[in-house]
Amino acid sequence: MTISRGPQAFPRTEYLRRLAAVKLEMGHRGIDALVVNNPRNITYLTGYTARSAYVPQALLVSMHKEEPTFVLRLMDAPAAIHQTWLDRGNVIGYPEGLIGNSEMDGFDAVIDSICELGLADRGLGLEFGDLSMRTAEKFKSRLPKASLVDFTNAVAWIRTVKSDFEISIMREAAAIADAGIIRAAEVIAPGMREADVMAEITATLARGANGKPGTDIANVFFCSSPRIGTCHIRWSDDIIRPDSQINLELGGVRHGYVAAIMRTFSLGAPSDRLRRLHEAELAGLEVALGTVRPGATCGDVAKAFNRTIERHGFTKESRCGYAIGIDWTEPTASLREGDMTELKPNMTFHLMLGNWIDEDFGYVVSETFRVTSSGAEVLTSAPRKLFEL
Amino acid sequence: MTISRGPQAFPRTEYLRRLAAVKLEMGHRGIDALVVNNPRNITYLTGYTARSAYVPQALLVSMHKEEPTFVLRLMDAPAAIHQTWLDRGNVIGYPEGLIGNSEMDGFDAVIDSICELGLADRGLGLEFGDLSMRTAEKFKSRLPKASLVDFTNAVAWIRTVKSDFEISIMREAAAIADAGIIRAAEVIAPGMREADVMAEITATLARGANGKPGTDIANVFFCSSPRIGTCHIRWSDDIIRPDSQINLELGGVRHGYVAAIMRTFSLGAPSDRLRRLHEAELAGLEVALGTVRPGATCGDVAKAFNRTIERHGFTKESRCGYAIGIDWTEPTASLREGDMTELKPNMTFHLMLGNWIDEDFGYVVSETFRVTSSGAEVLTSAPRKLFEL
Repeated sequence: MTISRGPQAFPRTEYLRRLAAVKLEMGHRGIDALVVNNPRNITYLTGYTARSAYVPQALLVSMHKEEPTFVLRLMDAPAAIHQTWLDRGNVIGYPEGLIGNSEMDGFDAVIDSICELGLADRGLGLEFGDLSMRTAEKFKSRLPKASLVDFTNAVAWIRTVKSDFEISIMREAAAIADAGIIRAAEVIAPGMREADVMAEITATLARGANGKPGTDIANVFFCSSPRIGTCHIRWSDDIIRPDSQINLELGGVRHGYVAAIMRTFSLGAPSDRLRRLHEAELAGLEVALGTVRPGATCGDVAKAFNRTIERHGFTKESRCGYAIGIDWTEPTASLREGDMTELKPNMTFHLMLGNWIDEDFGYVVSETFRVTSSGAEVLTSAPRKLFEL
Repeated sequence: MTISRGPQAFPRTEYLRRLAAVKLEMGHRGIDALVVNNPRNITYLTGYTARSAYVPQALLVSMHKEEPTFVLRLMDAPAAIHQTWLDRGNVIGYPEGLIGNSEMDGFDAVIDSICELGLADRGLGLEFGDLSMRTAEKFKSRLPKASLVDFTNAVAWIRTVKSDFEISIMREAAAIADAGIIRAAEVIAPGMREADVMAEITATLARGANGKPGTDIANVFFCSSPRIGTCHIRWSDDIIRPDSQINLELGGVRHGYVAAIMRTFSLGAPSDRLRRLHEAELAGLEVALGTVRPGATCGDVAKAFNRTIERHGFTKESRCGYAIGIDWTEPTASLREGDMTELKPNMTFHLMLGNWIDEDFGYVVSETFRVTSSGAEVLTSAPRKLFEL
């Protein structure tokens, strides 16, 4: 009748460490309880990776209780019991009548739990950046005695520095991403449908690497001529043509954690312009990685890249990357000039050097790296080249 | 230097028809302009399917202009020019400096465009349910002379009745979903890793069916023993065991449109309880489909199902389905008792009969159907059985 706890990606002590960091920040901000609504932050604090965030759910962290309380849809409660480190008594399923109901929704159940925990008149952190206005107003009107404090992105900032456990999982994800690139290089050929290449890539991302399966398929973007000036389209119904180009971005996933990589594929000899851009970007990538060390800023890394490609006659409009971890992009540090975030050991970034120079021209290369005690360790390791097929 | 418009899934007249319906509703609500932020509504009105909604973007529909204006991140503008029916002059890319910027973001560019279009002091519809509180407050503070009207889900309600063009695309998606189920039945076997089965399923969903590739991989949920009481987990690191069960949910995708299907697989002979539940659900499914006709309500369909399985000794806690279309679930009509939404020809639903009875016991079966002029046409057609492997 009951579901058992499943295998855990991290020990309980790791979750208690994460939670302690969150509670420390709660103390700094003078709040008694925190409503964690962002699904990536919920994964971080519990290990829950089921895809139920399209309906209301929240993790309640109280200063007065060791374990958080997870309030979610009744049908998702068994997944929470199975996947997370939480005692089953701390998993609360709200009734299905709150789904597709125009009067009340799951956030009413979350608020009920806040009241039952005796927190209705306390300092309460909310992730306003992740809540719709309607939901934020529900919290305000149903909890008139609480003093609501904006906690948006605070847990995400705590996530920026990974533990060695997390780095080890991200290495597994990076190996899967590499396998995806290598498989792409094997199968991309004129006459193939893009969809058939994508079939091979996604299958590889599911099978994983080194005996560790992918645990999800992250975003894959397959931008082929004449779409090599685009960056976020999936793929097309087209057949791959001779003398064309493909810009590929993909990620490997383990237990919610993503490592991302980009590579460019040239069918036939690359144009002179493409080759020159590739060389500029590779030089910039090396210089950027050489700039990474604790104490340097995110801005320093971007500046090093930008100055290098400028010497080669190119510029890049978009940022050079961003913090990466659970479900890809973290909404915190950016590798862009002016970002004063100081690099610390075990921060991880997607050094994203995709450069869409014209509407119809772009080139991509990227690596996922971590900051070490003295420099950068690149986690992805597929051949760092312009693939000529 | 420029990117060309790509092949279009729908003719321009189809988009003008959709837009006319939206403008009619805008007229009813007395607004001059609408800010469409929901990515599924943007797909509906433009054909844009690139995955850029993790940063701010919006489609501005003005009563005074035939075509909407699409404001999005500069790096995504080429995809909008390529994928949509809009004139390139109506695609506005905002600068990359608004990304990862704590002071301003892309919604500031959206508001700038509203001002430039002379709409700053007019009636303005916003999808408040899709906007964070921070963003909603930005609109209020930067547009003090506008009268803001909540337009949440109004476009989604317009989407509920599909055109024959859309139905035809959903038929293609349904054939892909069927292919995924059939492939699963071919490859699921004791000793296989779940990830290797998923590799085959996702590859099939990418390759598509009848010469029409899948254009994306939608959610796939592969819930195996001892997780058959869960519904939204991807898959696990496990090897498939003899005498176990798998509950599979997947969707085929064409140009953003999804058709979904669920089937249950029994490794070895099913338990008596599983077989009885299967028979109850199949009986309920037939009765539910028999209830579908224009003029009946969503509640009628749910009631027919619920009464039937009750006669077999079972109940189902969750709703019996929901409107389906672009990117799966539509936030409108629910097949649940009490939902008074009247069925109309060319509405499409996922008749979702997944029934998670205990934490450790569940069974799934579902079909995607459309309402016809006299009944239901089931779009999915994989064998409607409990697969015994």
